[in-house]
Amino acid sequence: MDVGSVGEFGLIERLAAIAGRPAPGLVLGIGDDAAVWRADDAFIVATTDTMVAGVHFLPGVHPWADVGWKALAVNVSDVAAMGAVPDFALVTLGLPPETPLEAVEELYRGLDECARAYGVAVAGGDIVRAPEAVVTVALLGHAQTDSHGQPLLLRRDGARPGYVLAVSGTLGDAAAGLELLRRGQTEGPLALAHSRPRPPLALGQEAARLRIPCAIDISDGLLQDLGHICRLSGVGAVIYAATLPLSDALRRACPDRALALACTGGEDYQLLLAGPSEALASLREKVPGPVTVIGEVVEGQGIAVLDEQGRPLDFPVPGWDHLRRP
Amino acid sequence: MDVGSVGEFGLIERLAAIAGRPAPGLVLGIGDDAAVWRADDAFIVATTDTMVAGVHFLPGVHPWADVGWKALAVNVSDVAAMGAVPDFALVTLGLPPETPLEAVEELYRGLDECARAYGVAVAGGDIVRAPEAVVTVALLGHAQTDSHGQPLLLRRDGARPGYVLAVSGTLGDAAAGLELLRRGQTEGPLALAHSRPRPPLALGQEAARLRIPCAIDISDGLLQDLGHICRLSGVGAVIYAATLPLSDALRRACPDRALALACTGGEDYQLLLAGPSEALASLREKVPGPVTVIGEVVEGQGIAVLDEQGRPLDFPVPGWDHLRRP
Repeated sequence: MDVGSVGEFGLIERLAAIAGRPAPGLVLGIGDDAAVWRADDAFIVATTDTMVAGVHFLPGVHPWADVGWKALAVNVSDVAAMGAVPDFALVTLGLPPETPLEAVEELYRGLDECARAYGVAVAGGDIVRAPEAVVTVALLGHAQTDSHGQPLLLRRDGARPGYVLAVSGTLGDAAAGLELLRRGQTEGPLALAHSRPRPPLALGQEAARLRIPCAIDISDGLLQDLGHICRLSGVGAVIYAATLPLSDALRRACPDRALALACTGGEDYQLLLAGPSEALASLREKVPGPVTVIGEVVEGQGIAVLDEQGRPLDFPVPGWDHLRRP
Repeated sequence: MDVGSVGEFGLIERLAAIAGRPAPGLVLGIGDDAAVWRADDAFIVATTDTMVAGVHFLPGVHPWADVGWKALAVNVSDVAAMGAVPDFALVTLGLPPETPLEAVEELYRGLDECARAYGVAVAGGDIVRAPEAVVTVALLGHAQTDSHGQPLLLRRDGARPGYVLAVSGTLGDAAAGLELLRRGQTEGPLALAHSRPRPPLALGQEAARLRIPCAIDISDGLLQDLGHICRLSGVGAVIYAATLPLSDALRRACPDRALALACTGGEDYQLLLAGPSEALASLREKVPGPVTVIGEVVEGQGIAVLDEQGRPLDFPVPGWDHLRRP
């Protein structure tokens, strides 16, 4: 059997069984958006994400500065999904020796723009020769704490029946943007949503302060990421399709597929939150951007997406798997 | 100009100029074996290293379990070179979909063996599709502190004229071991030195407690790594060739080239320390393995390797550059 057959999530389970032991100080290990451990009175939050040329970006299609921005932004998104504060990044570059120097400097300028936007400092990294360009960022930060010094964290396993589900921003834009980019359309809000994702960091932090217990970032598609919450929390979910926040740009560009892209398109880097409806109402009042209730957490298992008549909708592709063959 | 022309260290300088700003809490940024920052009362130590198939290991030559061991061990080496304590690892795997599942599980078993040997827990990571296997480990730990809560760190910029230079273990074994492995000889101490490096973590920690101010791990070859210390400390160095610790196995396997391999062969993952001779004498008493004085720090710049008659020796290849064309 090869790893393409078991897929990303099957492989993670097998590897976690080998090396994913509990450890002193470890608050959250393999399985959430980021790991969390205690260091004296601080709770360190750590995550890492990789972008590979030809897989996650296309040299010639994606400007290098955008690759750099996104390599950090996708990690900021994981920290936002914990309600935590990003501090320092380690940047690993795998590069073919023939990579133009200017390309790498552009990549770093884009990464640095993102670092400034989110208050992150590059503290180190590694540079190696590789057959294709690979950018790996490890992002370290810290959890907010309550007055007793306990960490305020948005966890994937925190959903309970009766909670409402809500998302930040709009969904599906990035997936539509990638299609436009492949056709050479680099301008406009959809392409920008794909190239320069802006994870709602302040929103995640406010949610943690409001004790909203559960969130995940939407990186692999709403339904797939909601599936992680359901599996880890031992619950099911109902989504009301008509409530999904779709941008006007998405509706115009893909009138027939807007809903499918919102449900299964990857790389939105918005937050999916689950919590008591009052807490989510407070969050809506406190943050400037949209927070839209899209469904609810129910007993049992499985996710139903219902149309306005209450009929279940079906989507052929559940979401993005980083390892299965394309 | 391409990155292969400027090389790893030229590129690091250019990228540090773009994104390597000082930041609140950052004690040591780009340029040392690991980054260090303050989080409440703790000093977090962070490093990352990557191994790429075809560049750092050869599938078919290097067993996957050894690749896993080494991917973590090279990071432990960086933490040892700070005199710090490793705690948690994030493991990123880039894998071709056709990678056998068994290979990845073997890799993880080797990595887990190393994790247990050094008291590290795997806290998370990322798995992505890639054209060649890539293993990136980010290792997080903490600095030891003195009675005032100040961090005890071995820094690259801490060498001063009059200090002695000393190394742990023996040098050149790993480079000779790689040659043997390429010829199919997988057994014996040299091959093992290459496949399963055992960085002297306890020695580095003891050195930090003894207030030895300066160290680096020997990953790219003694002379090149000593060059980093000299450049960052603004000093020169003299090495007495006859004092270099060479193993019997190395002398037997490569009688003519043992000295050259000890000076320029990479991947020893021993520590090069610089400090007052009394402090290094204390270290020798306190740790079980060999600590050998090999030279001294002098004013000025440049490194001289002298034979027993005081004549300078010359080595054509200074050491390993991760980016320059092979």
